[in-house]
Amino acid sequence: MNNASPLKPHEQLAAVLADDMALVNDQIRTRMASKHAPRIPEVTAHLVEAGGKRLRPMLTLAAARLCGYDGPYHVHLAATVEFIHTATLLHDDVVDESAKRRGRPTANLLWDNKSSVLVGDYLFSRSFQLMVETGNLRVLDILANASATIAEGEVLQLTAASNLATDEAIYLQVVRGKTAALFSAATQVGGVIAQADETVTQALYDYGDALGISFQIVDDLLDYGGAAASLGKNTGDDFRERKLTLPVIKAIAKADTTERDFWKRTIEKGDQQDGDLEQAMALLEKHNAMEETRQDALEWAGKARTALEALPESDLRNLLMDLSDYVVSRVV
Amino acid sequence: MNNASPLKPHEQLAAVLADDMALVNDQIRTRMASKHAPRIPEVTAHLVEAGGKRLRPMLTLAAARLCGYDGPYHVHLAATVEFIHTATLLHDDVVDESAKRRGRPTANLLWDNKSSVLVGDYLFSRSFQLMVETGNLRVLDILANASATIAEGEVLQLTAASNLATDEAIYLQVVRGKTAALFSAATQVGGVIAQADETVTQALYDYGDALGISFQIVDDLLDYGGAAASLGKNTGDDFRERKLTLPVIKAIAKADTTERDFWKRTIEKGDQQDGDLEQAMALLEKHNAMEETRQDALEWAGKARTALEALPESDLRNLLMDLSDYVVSRVV
Repeated sequence: MNNASPLKPHEQLAAVLADDMALVNDQIRTRMASKHAPRIPEVTAHLVEAGGKRLRPMLTLAAARLCGYDGPYHVHLAATVEFIHTATLLHDDVVDESAKRRGRPTANLLWDNKSSVLVGDYLFSRSFQLMVETGNLRVLDILANASATIAEGEVLQLTAASNLATDEAIYLQVVRGKTAALFSAATQVGGVIAQADETVTQALYDYGDALGISFQIVDDLLDYGGAAASLGKNTGDDFRERKLTLPVIKAIAKADTTERDFWKRTIEKGDQQDGDLEQAMALLEKHNAMEETRQDALEWAGKARTALEALPESDLRNLLMDLSDYVVSRVV
Repeated sequence: MNNASPLKPHEQLAAVLADDMALVNDQIRTRMASKHAPRIPEVTAHLVEAGGKRLRPMLTLAAARLCGYDGPYHVHLAATVEFIHTATLLHDDVVDESAKRRGRPTANLLWDNKSSVLVGDYLFSRSFQLMVETGNLRVLDILANASATIAEGEVLQLTAASNLATDEAIYLQVVRGKTAALFSAATQVGGVIAQADETVTQALYDYGDALGISFQIVDDLLDYGGAAASLGKNTGDDFRERKLTLPVIKAIAKADTTERDFWKRTIEKGDQQDGDLEQAMALLEKHNAMEETRQDALEWAGKARTALEALPESDLRNLLMDLSDYVVSRVV
């Protein structure tokens, strides 16, 4: 189905779930209102009006609808998931911006750091209130575990990111923390709130997990210009920030001594010169690292699609399957 | 009772609750273990070995025991409360240190900021897992609301701290966020987990709230040298950090035009010169602000003691009553 539609899968999802998403936006606005701390709604406005894809809350809504849910709490949970996502982004800003502007912070940067930390905490606490209102302990358990995976993954990334010993297993753990844990919790709680049976909620978890991983791998690929390493406007941010992503991990695994010294200097020590990004990209090509990474992304997208085969066929199910293809279509 | 004991009330509490506290420490150590992120246990070690008074977890343990609880979950909740407290401290470090060392950050400071944000998030998520394990939705509701009060109070403090329009009502709200919300949640959940009736859990909430407020007011007084403003080793940190605390709010309420200009320059604009701290302290004395603040602290301590009169008399209840006197004894 849907292949003939001019809309992309996430746009079709947005159309199908438009009424629910309007309720989610209302919920977000209401929960962010703070008469005493005007800085909080400032951030909200940015959040609600920014018009991102809202992929995570849509996943929760879709999973709940897919399981025949007709209560009110999928809206709470979708808002919860979006709050957690936004809080994580705010805290990432502190962690990333500090590194980027090392040695040249401005008063403005410091002010932003404060607001990012505290408004992030506020969003976490609001998400916590929202999920408690569902009164569903299994949902709370899933979201508590996802939060721990996210936080542990973030701390792990601090130490692993520029360490040449980081292998694909550690990378996967970081990616689960960074992206997949919230995707899988988002889909799973949608099923749990609908009281779907264990096979179904496990399938929804597996789908979210695999979708999140392929999503992040594609992001890492695009940072080096896509399926084949090529220079573009935003190419090389991860390299400059000394982040060991999957293509680089694959290239390092095959590096000879000279190449290893190159990665050690540029990533581990952060001593980068003109031409180093081009050299890095040449090494990614030489070892077929971009193509192999692309294959991994496709494989995870395939796992996501397959996971949903455990669910009865429906338009919504097929749309979620198409979404997994769409996520990797940027690098196909 | 206990007046003849050579031990202070919090030391007596620690002695009475020693077995429970040992279990809390075990729980903290276990929950902080992370095979992938060694930075996390580093912070734990500091937390567990630092040997603070551990007032908050003791309050939870005492409240549960006071209500005849004999299950295992008061230990989870005490660890939860300590995790939330430590996470808040870590995030405060980011907010405060940035301001203190404005313009002179070091790589070390930046690294600490990252770790503080992310290890703080990790502690929040662990506390969340711990409380979900109790399976008690009322407990989760109380802690979710306390988290929101804490986070909103912190954001409010960002804007209110150096704003001369901040009055005693706003100060109280900041103090509830900063200190009292966790004290009152700590005592209340102890009663709730023991299935105490509403009168008792409300009394425990009121006790924790009043105790927390008096605790924070005393801290603010001590920052200017205690009951009478006097210079000491750590005197004046709040003044240098341009924090509007209760003594200053009281002095500003009575300030003439010249004095108002002084506060505007030093607190609102942060333009401080040699002798300003001495001048600030002279103004606090002139308007009797220290003595009036001290009276407020005593009044809140009295409210804490009175709240517990709703509970049947017991050694443990009396010890908690004595604790409220002890908290203000530093400025009596």
